[in-house]
Amino acid sequence: MSVSSTTWELDAQLTRDTFAVGDLLLSRVLLMDDANYPWLMLVPRRAGAVELTDLDEADQIQLMAEIALASGALRAAAPCDKLNVAAIGNVVPQLHVHVVARSRDDPVWPKPVWGQLPARAYDSETRDRLIAALRGGLGLA
Amino acid sequence: MSVSSTTWELDAQLTRDTFAVGDLLLSRVLLMDDANYPWLMLVPRRAGAVELTDLDEADQIQLMAEIALASGALRAAAPCDKLNVAAIGNVVPQLHVHVVARSRDDPVWPKPVWGQLPARAYDSETRDRLIAALRGGLGLA
Repeated sequence: MSVSSTTWELDAQLTRDTFAVGDLLLSRVLLMDDANYPWLMLVPRRAGAVELTDLDEADQIQLMAEIALASGALRAAAPCDKLNVAAIGNVVPQLHVHVVARSRDDPVWPKPVWGQLPARAYDSETRDRLIAALRGGLGLA
Repeated sequence: MSVSSTTWELDAQLTRDTFAVGDLLLSRVLLMDDANYPWLMLVPRRAGAVELTDLDEADQIQLMAEIALASGALRAAAPCDKLNVAAIGNVVPQLHVHVVARSRDDPVWPKPVWGQLPARAYDSETRDRLIAALRGGLGLA
Protein backbone atom coordinates (compact mmCIF):
# COMPACT_ATOMS: atom_id res chain seq x y z
CA MET A 1 0.00 0.00 0.00
CA SER A 2 1.17 3.50 -0.79
CA VAL A 3 1.18 6.28 1.80
CA SER A 4 -1.85 7.85 0.14
CA SER A 5 -3.88 4.69 0.71
CA THR A 6 -3.02 4.41 4.39
CA THR A 7 -3.58 8.01 5.56
CA TRP A 8 -7.11 9.30 5.31
CA GLU A 9 -7.54 12.94 4.39
CA LEU A 10 -10.74 14.69 3.33
CA ASP A 11 -10.92 15.25 -0.42
CA ALA A 12 -10.08 18.84 -1.46
CA GLN A 13 -13.37 19.45 -3.29
CA LEU A 14 -15.44 18.12 -0.39
CA THR A 15 -13.45 20.41 1.90
CA ARG A 16 -14.20 23.44 -0.29
CA ASP A 17 -17.92 22.70 -0.68
CA THR A 18 -18.82 21.98 2.95
CA PHE A 19 -18.59 22.87 6.62
CA ALA A 20 -17.50 20.27 9.17
CA VAL A 21 -20.23 19.19 11.58
CA GLY A 22 -18.20 16.62 13.51
CA ASP A 23 -16.83 13.11 13.57
CA LEU A 24 -18.87 10.00 14.30
CA LEU A 25 -17.16 6.70 15.03
CA LEU A 26 -16.58 6.01 11.33
CA SER A 27 -17.60 9.06 9.33
CA ARG A 28 -16.86 12.74 9.20
CA VAL A 29 -20.17 14.58 8.91
CA LEU A 30 -20.23 17.59 6.60
CA LEU A 31 -22.88 20.17 5.80
CA MET A 32 -22.99 21.16 2.14
CA ASP A 33 -22.80 24.93 1.81
CA ASP A 34 -26.04 24.95 -0.18
CA ALA A 35 -29.06 26.58 1.41
CA ASN A 36 -31.31 25.22 -1.37
CA TYR A 37 -31.69 22.01 0.64
CA PRO A 38 -30.38 20.87 4.04
CA TRP A 39 -27.73 18.45 2.83
CA LEU A 40 -25.29 16.32 4.82
CA MET A 41 -22.44 14.17 3.67
CA LEU A 42 -20.94 11.25 5.56
CA VAL A 43 -17.35 10.47 4.67
CA PRO A 44 -15.98 7.25 6.17
CA ARG A 45 -12.45 7.93 7.41
CA ARG A 46 -10.98 4.97 5.54
CA ALA A 47 -8.12 5.75 3.21
CA GLY A 48 -8.64 4.68 -0.38
CA ALA A 49 -12.32 3.72 -0.03
CA VAL A 50 -14.31 4.50 -3.19
CA GLU A 51 -17.18 2.00 -3.20
CA LEU A 52 -19.36 0.91 -0.27
CA THR A 53 -17.87 -2.53 -0.85
CA ASP A 54 -14.40 -1.16 -0.14
CA LEU A 55 -15.48 -1.03 3.51
CA ASP A 56 -15.26 -4.22 5.51
CA GLU A 57 -18.48 -5.68 6.84
CA ALA A 58 -18.19 -4.06 10.27
CA ASP A 59 -17.66 -0.64 8.67
CA GLN A 60 -20.61 -1.21 6.32
CA ILE A 61 -22.83 -1.90 9.33
CA GLN A 62 -21.46 1.15 11.15
CA LEU A 63 -22.04 3.31 8.08
CA MET A 64 -25.66 2.17 7.88
CA ALA A 65 -26.10 3.09 11.56
CA GLU A 66 -24.55 6.50 10.92
CA ILE A 67 -26.82 7.05 7.89
CA ALA A 68 -29.80 6.34 10.15
CA LEU A 69 -28.44 8.65 12.87
CA ALA A 70 -27.75 11.43 10.36
CA SER A 71 -31.21 10.96 8.83
CA GLY A 72 -32.84 11.49 12.20
CA ALA A 73 -30.66 14.47 13.10
CA LEU A 74 -31.24 16.11 9.73
CA ARG A 75 -34.99 15.57 9.88
CA ALA A 76 -35.13 16.97 13.43
CA ALA A 77 -33.10 20.05 12.47
CA ALA A 78 -34.87 20.61 9.14
CA PRO A 79 -38.32 19.04 8.80
CA CYS A 80 -38.79 17.60 5.30
CA ASP A 81 -40.98 15.38 3.15
CA LYS A 82 -38.37 12.86 1.99
CA LEU A 83 -34.76 11.95 2.58
CA ASN A 84 -32.53 11.18 -0.38
CA VAL A 85 -29.55 8.97 0.46
CA ALA A 86 -26.90 8.24 -2.13
CA ALA A 87 -23.34 7.13 -2.73
CA ILE A 88 -22.53 8.28 -6.27
CA GLY A 89 -18.94 9.47 -6.55
CA ASN A 90 -18.64 9.83 -10.32
CA VAL A 91 -16.86 13.17 -9.89
CA VAL A 92 -15.26 12.91 -6.41
CA PRO A 93 -14.11 9.31 -6.00
CA GLN A 94 -13.52 9.44 -2.22
CA LEU A 95 -16.42 7.45 -0.72
CA HIS A 96 -19.07 9.85 0.55
CA VAL A 97 -22.76 9.39 1.23
CA HIS A 98 -25.23 12.20 0.59
CA VAL A 99 -28.18 12.59 2.96
CA VAL A 100 -30.44 15.31 1.59
CA ALA A 101 -33.64 16.66 3.15
CA ARG A 102 -36.16 17.22 0.37
CA SER A 103 -39.40 19.16 0.47
CA ARG A 104 -42.21 19.24 -2.02
CA ASP A 105 -41.68 22.98 -2.29
CA ASP A 106 -37.90 22.89 -2.75
CA PRO A 107 -36.63 24.35 -6.03
CA VAL A 108 -36.10 21.08 -7.95
CA TRP A 109 -38.60 18.64 -6.40
CA PRO A 110 -39.12 15.83 -7.37
CA LYS A 111 -35.86 15.64 -9.30
CA PRO A 112 -32.69 14.48 -7.54
CA VAL A 113 -30.51 17.44 -6.54
CA TRP A 114 -27.27 16.49 -8.25
CA GLY A 115 -26.29 18.71 -11.15
CA GLN A 116 -29.44 20.83 -10.95
CA LEU A 117 -28.79 24.20 -9.32
CA PRO A 118 -25.68 26.17 -8.39
CA ALA A 119 -25.11 26.00 -4.64
CA ARG A 120 -26.59 28.92 -2.70
CA ALA A 121 -24.28 29.78 0.21
CA TYR A 122 -25.68 29.96 3.74
CA ASP A 123 -25.58 33.17 5.72
CA SER A 124 -23.36 32.51 8.72
CA GLU A 125 -26.13 32.81 11.30
CA THR A 126 -28.40 30.24 9.62
CA ARG A 127 -25.44 27.95 9.08
CA ASP A 128 -24.26 28.14 12.69
CA ARG A 129 -27.77 27.51 14.02
CA LEU A 130 -28.22 24.51 11.71
CA ILE A 131 -24.83 23.03 12.61
CA ALA A 132 -25.58 23.43 16.32
CA ALA A 133 -28.93 21.64 15.90
CA LEU A 134 -27.28 18.89 13.85
CA ARG A 135 -24.53 18.40 16.46
CA GLY A 136 -27.22 18.03 19.09
CA GLY A 137 -29.09 15.43 17.05
CA LEU A 138 -25.89 13.53 16.30
CA GLY A 139 -24.88 13.41 19.95
CA LEU A 140 -21.86 15.63 19.26
CA ALA A 141 -23.01 18.65 21.24
CA MET B 1 -52.41 -0.68 10.95
CA SER B 2 -54.40 -0.82 7.75
CA VAL B 3 -54.29 -3.85 5.47
CA SER B 4 -52.16 -1.92 3.01
CA SER B 5 -49.50 -1.41 5.64
CA THR B 6 -49.30 -5.05 6.64
CA THR B 7 -49.21 -6.79 3.23
CA TRP B 8 -46.21 -6.05 1.08
CA GLU B 9 -46.80 -5.80 -2.64
CA LEU B 10 -44.43 -4.45 -5.28
CA ASP B 11 -45.33 -0.93 -6.39
CA ALA B 12 -47.13 -0.82 -9.76
CA GLN B 13 -44.61 1.51 -11.44
CA LEU B 14 -41.64 -0.56 -10.28
CA THR B 15 -43.44 -3.63 -11.65
CA ARG B 16 -43.91 -1.97 -15.04
CA ASP B 17 -40.36 -0.67 -15.34
CA THR B 18 -38.43 -3.80 -14.34
CA PHE B 19 -37.90 -7.55 -14.63
CA ALA B 20 -37.74 -9.70 -11.51
CA VAL B 21 -34.33 -11.22 -10.82
CA GLY B 22 -35.22 -12.99 -7.59
CA ASP B 23 -35.75 -12.64 -3.86
CA LEU B 24 -32.97 -12.31 -1.30
CA LEU B 25 -33.71 -12.72 2.40
CA LEU B 26 -35.06 -9.16 2.68
CA SER B 27 -35.24 -7.62 -0.76
CA ARG B 28 -36.74 -8.37 -4.12
CA VAL B 29 -34.09 -7.77 -6.76
CA LEU B 30 -35.25 -6.14 -9.98
CA LEU B 31 -33.50 -5.32 -13.25
CA MET B 32 -34.52 -1.97 -14.72
CA ASP B 33 -35.58 -2.44 -18.34
CA ASP B 34 -33.03 0.14 -19.46
CA ALA B 35 -30.13 -1.06 -21.56
CA ASN B 36 -28.41 2.34 -21.21
CA TYR B 37 -26.87 1.12 -17.95
CA PRO B 38 -27.00 -2.17 -16.05
CA TRP B 39 -29.30 -1.11 -13.22
CA LEU B 40 -30.66 -3.12 -10.31
CA MET B 41 -33.19 -2.19 -7.69
CA LEU B 42 -33.49 -3.75 -4.24
CA VAL B 43 -36.95 -3.49 -2.72
CA PRO B 44 -37.18 -4.60 0.92
CA ARG B 45 -40.34 -6.65 1.34
CA ARG B 46 -41.56 -4.60 4.28
CA ALA B 47 -45.04 -3.12 3.94
CA GLY B 48 -45.22 0.64 4.30
CA ALA B 49 -41.45 1.27 4.36
CA VAL B 50 -40.55 4.56 2.66
CA GLU B 51 -37.30 5.68 4.32
CA LEU B 52 -34.28 3.55 5.22
CA THR B 53 -35.08 4.46 8.82
CA ASP B 54 -38.49 2.77 8.49
CA LEU B 55 -36.57 -0.52 8.60
CA ASP B 56 -35.61 -1.84 12.00
CA GLU B 57 -31.91 -2.16 12.77
CA ALA B 58 -31.66 -5.82 11.78
CA ASP B 59 -33.28 -5.08 8.42
CA GLN B 60 -30.98 -2.08 7.88
CA ILE B 61 -27.98 -4.35 8.40
CA GLN B 62 -29.45 -6.99 6.09
CA LEU B 63 -30.14 -4.36 3.43
CA MET B 64 -26.53 -3.17 3.58
CA ALA B 65 -25.38 -6.79 3.12
CA GLU B 66 -27.73 -7.18 0.15
CA ILE B 67 -26.47 -3.91 -1.38
CA ALA B 68 -22.93 -5.30 -1.13
CA LEU B 69 -24.03 -8.64 -2.61
CA ALA B 70 -25.89 -6.93 -5.46
CA SER B 71 -22.92 -4.63 -6.09
CA GLY B 72 -20.64 -7.63 -6.54
CA ALA B 73 -23.10 -9.53 -8.71
CA LEU B 74 -23.74 -6.50 -10.92
CA ARG B 75 -20.05 -5.75 -11.30
CA ALA B 76 -19.33 -9.39 -12.19
CA ALA B 77 -22.13 -9.51 -14.77
CA ALA B 78 -21.42 -6.06 -16.20
CA PRO B 79 -17.91 -4.70 -15.62
CA CYS B 80 -18.05 -0.97 -14.87
CA ASP B 81 -16.05 1.99 -13.60
CA LYS B 82 -18.29 3.05 -10.67
CA LEU B 83 -21.35 1.90 -8.82
CA ASN B 84 -24.04 4.42 -7.94
CA VAL B 85 -26.17 3.40 -4.95
CA ALA B 86 -29.18 5.48 -3.95
CA ALA B 87 -32.46 5.52 -2.08
CA ILE B 88 -34.35 8.50 -3.47
CA GLY B 89 -38.07 7.77 -3.74
CA ASN B 90 -39.36 11.25 -4.53
CA VAL B 91 -41.65 9.80 -7.22
CA VAL B 92 -42.23 6.19 -6.10
CA PRO B 93 -42.45 6.26 -2.29
CA GLN B 94 -42.08 2.48 -1.74
CA LEU B 95 -38.55 2.07 -0.33
CA HIS B 96 -36.23 0.95 -3.13
CA VAL B 97 -32.47 1.16 -3.53
CA HIS B 98 -30.90 1.75 -6.91
CA VAL B 99 -27.60 0.01 -7.72
CA VAL B 100 -26.39 1.26 -11.10
CA ALA B 101 -23.27 0.19 -12.97
CA ARG B 102 -21.70 3.27 -14.51
CA SER B 103 -19.03 3.48 -17.18
CA ARG B 104 -17.01 6.45 -18.31
CA ASP B 105 -18.37 5.86 -21.81
CA ASP B 106 -22.04 5.52 -20.84
CA PRO B 107 -24.38 8.10 -22.38
CA VAL B 108 -24.66 10.48 -19.39
CA TRP B 109 -21.40 9.99 -17.47
CA PRO B 110 -20.55 11.60 -15.04
CA LYS B 111 -24.10 12.79 -14.29
CA PRO B 112 -26.39 10.65 -12.16
CA VAL B 113 -28.81 8.65 -14.31
CA TRP B 114 -32.12 9.81 -12.83
CA GLY B 115 -34.22 11.94 -15.11
CA GLN B 116 -31.65 11.97 -17.91
CA LEU B 117 -32.56 9.62 -20.75
CA PRO B 118 -35.68 7.69 -21.69
CA ALA B 119 -35.26 4.02 -20.85
CA ARG B 120 -33.98 1.90 -23.75
CA ALA B 121 -35.62 -1.55 -23.57
CA TYR B 122 -33.45 -4.68 -23.61
CA ASP B 123 -33.73 -7.23 -26.37
CA SER B 124 -34.93 -10.44 -24.75
CA GLU B 125 -31.72 -12.38 -25.39
CA THR B 126 -29.46 -9.78 -23.74
CA ARG B 127 -31.90 -9.43 -20.86
CA ASP B 128 -32.14 -13.19 -20.25
CA ARG B 129 -28.37 -13.58 -20.35
CA LEU B 130 -27.88 -10.71 -17.91
CA ILE B 131 -30.54 -11.99 -15.51
CA ALA B 132 -28.97 -15.47 -15.57
CA ALA B 133 -25.55 -14.00 -14.76
CA LEU B 134 -27.03 -11.86 -11.99
CA ARG B 135 -28.87 -14.81 -10.45
CA GLY B 136 -25.59 -16.70 -10.42
CA GLY B 137 -23.80 -13.84 -8.70
CA LEU B 138 -26.59 -13.43 -6.16
CA GLY B 139 -26.60 -17.11 -5.27
CA LEU B 140 -30.09 -17.53 -6.74
CA ALA B 141 -29.15 -19.80 -9.65
